[in-house]
Amino acid sequence: MTMQGRSFILTIGRSQLLILRMLFMLHLPKKEPIITYSLSLRSRYSETDKMGVVYHSRYLEYFEVIRTEFIRQAGLSYREMEESGVIMPVVGLETRFRRPVLYDDSMEGRLLIYEEPVMRLTTWYEIRTEREQDFAVLGKVDLAFLSMETRRPMRVPDLFLSKLRNYGQVAQ
Amino acid sequence: MTMQGRSFILTIGRSQLLILRMLFMLHLPKKEPIITYSLSLRSRYSETDKMGVVYHSRYLEYFEVIRTEFIRQAGLSYREMEESGVIMPVVGLETRFRRPVLYDDSMEGRLLIYEEPVMRLTTWYEIRTEREQDFAVLGKVDLAFLSMETRRPMRVPDLFLSKLRNYGQVAQ
Amino acid sequence: MTMQGRSFILTIGRSQLLILRMLFMLHLPKKEPIITYSLSLRSRYSETDKMGVVYHSRYLEYFEVIRTEFIRQAGLSYREMEESGVIMPVVGLETRFRRPVLYDDSMEGRLLIYEEPVMRLTTWYEIRTEREQDFAVLGKVDLAFLSMETRRPMRVPDLFLSKLRNYGQVAQ
Amino acid sequence: MTMQGRSFILTIGRSQLLILRMLFMLHLPKKEPIITYSLSLRSRYSETDKMGVVYHSRYLEYFEVIRTEFIRQAGLSYREMEESGVIMPVVGLETRFRRPVLYDDSMEGRLLIYEEPVMRLTTWYEIRTEREQDFAVLGKVDLAFLSMETRRPMRVPDLFLSKLRNYGQVAQ
Repeated sequence: MTMQGRSFILTIGRSQLLILRMLFMLHLPKKEPIITYSLSLRSRYSETDKMGVVYHSRYLEYFEVIRTEFIRQAGLSYREMEESGVIMPVVGLETRFRRPVLYDDSMEGRLLIYEEPVMRLTTWYEIRTEREQDFAVLGKVDLAFLSMETRRPMRVPDLFLSKLRNYGQVAQ
Repeated sequence: MTMQGRSFILTIGRSQLLILRMLFMLHLPKKEPIITYSLSLRSRYSETDKMGVVYHSRYLEYFEVIRTEFIRQAGLSYREMEESGVIMPVVGLETRFRRPVLYDDSMEGRLLIYEEPVMRLTTWYEIRTEREQDFAVLGKVDLAFLSMETRRPMRVPDLFLSKLRNYGQVAQ
Repeated sequence: MTMQGRSFILTIGRSQLLILRMLFMLHLPKKEPIITYSLSLRSRYSETDKMGVVYHSRYLEYFEVIRTEFIRQAGLSYREMEESGVIMPVVGLETRFRRPVLYDDSMEGRLLIYEEPVMRLTTWYEIRTEREQDFAVLGKVDLAFLSMETRRPMRVPDLFLSKLRNYGQVAQ
Repeated sequence: MTMQGRSFILTIGRSQLLILRMLFMLHLPKKEPIITYSLSLRSRYSETDKMGVVYHSRYLEYFEVIRTEFIRQAGLSYREMEESGVIMPVVGLETRFRRPVLYDDSMEGRLLIYEEPVMRLTTWYEIRTEREQDFAVLGKVDLAFLSMETRRPMRVPDLFLSKLRNYGQVAQ
């Protein structure tokens, strides 16, 4: 949230401010995802820090593992996409940490997609341990489609979009 | 941004939606920071990935190095804080990637703080390379103050607050 | 190999030197292992570097994942061992890199143990990809048994040894 | 040490075995290095693990930082070397861990080279903290020279060798 945001909000009153603050806090969109994918993960010793829990940046690596496996499940391979000249760099991310994940925790990682990509793909993630019903970590990662050669943005490749649609339909 | 946010916005019209979208994109607050701190960094080979650039999660480690050095500069030591029983886990973060940082790039890392902490400390970061004037990566990291023993939230320790104020005044 | 080693060798002649050089190059012991354990792994994007291959230090994390899963398979849990007051820090390691592992490679990781531990456990590892018969990476990791409280060396816990023996017999 | 090594040794008697065991333990060569370089480092929070100390594989990243800075100090840049088509992958390594390094420890990292490279460069490292005179971690890293295009081994580039010689002479 930026000051611009805040000053705009202040003109519309204090109670609205509270409502907007809650809206700004990261949580999943309130509609049906077009894609849901789930993967089991286990935290490694090397991913913990001296607080005894998984270091915060490591969840971004989990998100990527989940994303990679989803793309494979959808009938593509991110490695082959790169070899065909399309890279998908992360251009933005947001994460909310509710509970720590400990060493050797068995986790369920979920990927959710709510909208078909055009220039960007927005992906959402939930990490859950067996100890709790609610998520431990929630994340949102925005990816661009770039030509590897020119490093310029491009539209989502047709093959990617059709595999995405196919996975979404089959899953429902 | 969540659908709740969006549905709220839609009731106030399409042109406001566009304005709010830009507001939602991460950028620095439009007011004077109370703290500014700058540190030189250099990217390591181990921090790059096969795209030839620094892997996105690694910037969070840079943010932490900058934060740790700032705390030392302010006359404290995060290690001593932990030894005295206060930990500061990351509870939320947001990052925007504008340009890649390459291997062995010399970077300027800036920390900015805009508001005194009460229960949480919100810190902002800009990473710049020598190739460009504008930032390469922009980040926002929210930290809580927790008692190490109980793992429960606490108010900012007085010593921390006074060192922060002191640094802010001396720097101006 | 150190110069002491080498000067010792020089006194025994040039042909012996060549033989000893080959002996010094890391390879698996030429006897039957008492323990063999195998685990499937897949390399992550975050584990690659700008050479386009898995960064050399990351194999040590693979070794640890293999070790952790083996201990679980043997009927123990390294996490529970730590909770009961025994830690197993790495005190020495040696690695030989024959072929690079690429991003998203499916790997077979093998753990081999040749001798029952007394004060230390020596573990050996082979990482293989599907592209080749021979190993890509070979490693040897020496672990000590330490009391978490005193951080002093101790003998292998009886439970650990009996589980190891049990796994070795069942597997044969 | 391999069983071949051991069986060879056994033929020359038990007392020699003990001597050879000590020789096999990693320690610095007993001659004058042709290159010595020193760099200050500080351990990061992200580099610690739940044992509260720097995770063992992280020292290999420190070794690389020291190596990179040494190459720069010698008047070259590893990044430029890669851009000119020469890569230096790690082909072997050995590490001995004597004492743990803690979070936020100020370290002295030393690089030592004992022999001019032909096909390979063997580099040695000592990591020391301020708490102790003796080293905390000792390492040895073997690097090959490879053509980036063909990925085949090559001799040390002339420029690299002359810069190395020059640094060695100036330093003495």
